[in-house]
This record gives sequence, structure tokens and C-alpha cells, in this order.
Amino acid sequence: MEKQGILFVVSAPSGTGKTTLCRELTIKLPNLTHSVSYTTRSPRPDEVDGREYFFVNETRFREMVERNEFAEWAEVHGNLYGTHNGHLLDIMNRGEDILLDIDSQGAIQMKKRFKDGVFIYILPPSFEVLKSRLTDRGSESAEEIRKRLKKAKEEIWNYREYYYIVVNDDFKKALNDLKSIIIAERIKMKRMNLSWIEENFIKNKEA
Amino acid sequence: MEKQGILFVVSAPSGTGKTTLCRELTIKLPNLTHSVSYTTRSPRPDEVDGREYFFVNETRFREMVERNEFAEWAEVHGNLYGTHNGHLLDIMNRGEDILLDIDSQGAIQMKKRFKDGVFIYILPPSFEVLKSRLTDRGSESAEEIRKRLKKAKEEIWNYREYYYIVVNDDFKKALNDLKSIIIAERIKMKRMNLSWIEENFIKNKEA
Repeated sequence: MEKQGILFVVSAPSGTGKTTLCRELTIKLPNLTHSVSYTTRSPRPDEVDGREYFFVNETRFREMVERNEFAEWAEVHGNLYGTHNGHLLDIMNRGEDILLDIDSQGAIQMKKRFKDGVFIYILPPSFEVLKSRLTDRGSESAEEIRKRLKKAKEEIWNYREYYYIVVNDDFKKALNDLKSIIIAERIKMKRMNLSWIEENFIKNKEA
Repeated sequence: MEKQGILFVVSAPSGTGKTTLCRELTIKLPNLTHSVSYTTRSPRPDEVDGREYFFVNETRFREMVERNEFAEWAEVHGNLYGTHNGHLLDIMNRGEDILLDIDSQGAIQMKKRFKDGVFIYILPPSFEVLKSRLTDRGSESAEEIRKRLKKAKEEIWNYREYYYIVVNDDFKKALNDLKSIIIAERIKMKRMNLSWIEENFIKNKEA
């Protein structure tokens, strides 16, 4: 049997640096593919279909929901977002590991389908830091910031569903924590291809 | 409640580079202490009591066995070796992690006592490499090498008892694998002190 890829699911409240951490991770680690979600929201000028997202209209998205094609999906601020089951399985069946960056509601859905998945939560070092990170962007109104903080708090309520906690206090340390999780999960006994060990050391007549 | 240290148990057949890897690990990683075993064998000229081993005579060792002071102990080539339970608990209660480097018989005993321990097996890349590593030392007779290889094979039979497999093909990679395991285990949800998360994000009125 070929080795199956591992599913890594990462969640974090907005303003925690998740996007930058995930991008760096897929650059630094070989054999780790960032999963591309489907969405009904319009592409931004710099976004490419199939790279940031697969962009589809709502009718198409609803059809896919009907056909049970999503491993998880959710409505966020009036737009639909979903992770395509077949897309995940294609990558994993090639033996590649997947990095999936979704909110905690989606992660809870994923936990039911992918029992061997690895669920990682990224936290800011404190609520005050999260607040100042969101405020310092300077691009959102006070009302928008209040809404984002409320959403962040709701998001954090689910942190206990995850298996690992990474605190993004120092970016390099957080990145190293994430790399360590991925490297360690890959060499877990339960995930290893044991046949070469059996051939080499156990069944080897000379050994 | 103070954070308890984590017990890391490492085993490997002779000639796999375990000793050098363990030494490097405790140098590179803070808060990781190499456990010191008790033995009845005589100290070598460069060995210091309490550093490489606690050296005791057989009467004293047998008394300690009687008093159930060892978490595990074994007889190897006519000498007794044991891991003192109190020594481990002292370190872990200080919140320090322990690196314990013992054979697979000892590791199996440890698994029963320390349910939260992390069990790591180090393998050579192949049986041929192991053979040539033992032969290349040039210090042992053919008979001695044959005995060591036989022992190595028996040792490897127990590899399935462990949670992680590190293959020492490339020293730097093997060291990085071991570091990754330790870092990842430290940030597992089940081991984290969650009270600061609860205080900061869940119970915080402003949050």
C-alpha cells in the first residue's frame, strides 16, 4: 500500500498571523500542499482562480453541497466557503500532506470525517496583543474592530477541539513549532511504512 | 498545579549513534535533562559518579530492588543497571523534561509506569549499515561482532512498542527529528497549561 498523505488543519482567530505562517510553512517544508477552497465571493484583483480559491457562483456551490462534495463548508459574511472532498483525497492519495487553513466550525466538521487528521490551533500571546494587532492595521472602523474581536473570541472558544497549541508571540518560534509538529507527525509509528523495517531487520535471514 | 516534566524514552540497537544524538539533544534543547542510571559495573577512568552513572555495589543495588526504588532495571553482561524512580520524579516535579536512554526491555517496563511517557526508537538505515558500523570500529573480534549483531536484532524486535521512529541515516536530520518530537510533544493540548488561555481569552470580560 502506498503511503497516504497526512491532513493538517490549522485554525486561528483573525489577526494571529495564520496566513503568513501557513505560506511560510509550505515554502519551507517539502511535500506539504496548501489546500485550495471553493468560494462564492468575487476574486480580488491579485487573486488567481485555482491558486487562492476556486471561484464559483452560488448555484454551482449549492449543487456541490447537494452532491455532498464538500468535506466542510460554511457561510461567512454572506459568502460561501467549502473544502472539496475529492481535492483533499487526490492530494493525500498522491502521498502528499495537506495544510488546510479553516475556521473552527469547519475544523470540527473535518474531525468527524478525517479521524487521522492533525488539528492545530494558533493563538496570539494575549487578548491585548490581538486587539492592538487588529487596531494597528488602521484600515477598519471601531465598529468593524469590535465585530472582529467578538468573532475572535467566539473562534477561540473552540480551542479545546485541537491537538496542538501554537502561540504566535515570536514569528520564528511559532513557525518552528508548526514545522516540528509536521515533522513529528510524519515519523509517528502509526503513520510509518513499516514494511522496510520488517524486510530489513525482522525477516532478513542474515540479521 | 505546576507543569509536570515530560518523560522521553529513547532506545536503539548498539551502533545506531544513540549516545551522540542524546548528548547533542540535551545540549541543544533547554529544559531537557539526561537521566542518570544506577549501575554495579566499575567506573571507567573518565567517568564521574553522578554524571555518567551512580556507581553502587551489588548489595546496595539489590536492596534498592527490594525496596522497589527502580522504575526499571535489568542485568546486562553480568552487570546491573537501573533507573531510580525518585530521581525521575524529582526532575519531573521541577517541571523539567527527562531524556532516558535505555534498552527496549527497560522501555517496556517504563511504559507500564509512565502512561504519558513518549517512546522513541532510533534505527540505523539498514542492517548492512549497522553491520559495517560495528565492524568498522575495528576494536571487536568477529565473535564479539556476531554477538552484538544478534543482540541488535533482538533489540529491534521490540520496535513496535514505540510511538516514534527516527532513522539515523543523516545525523543532522535524525537530530532534527528528535528535536521536533520534543518540541511537538511540549505543545500538545493535553500537556499544555490551559489556565492562561482560559484567563486571557475565555474568562476575560473584555474579550
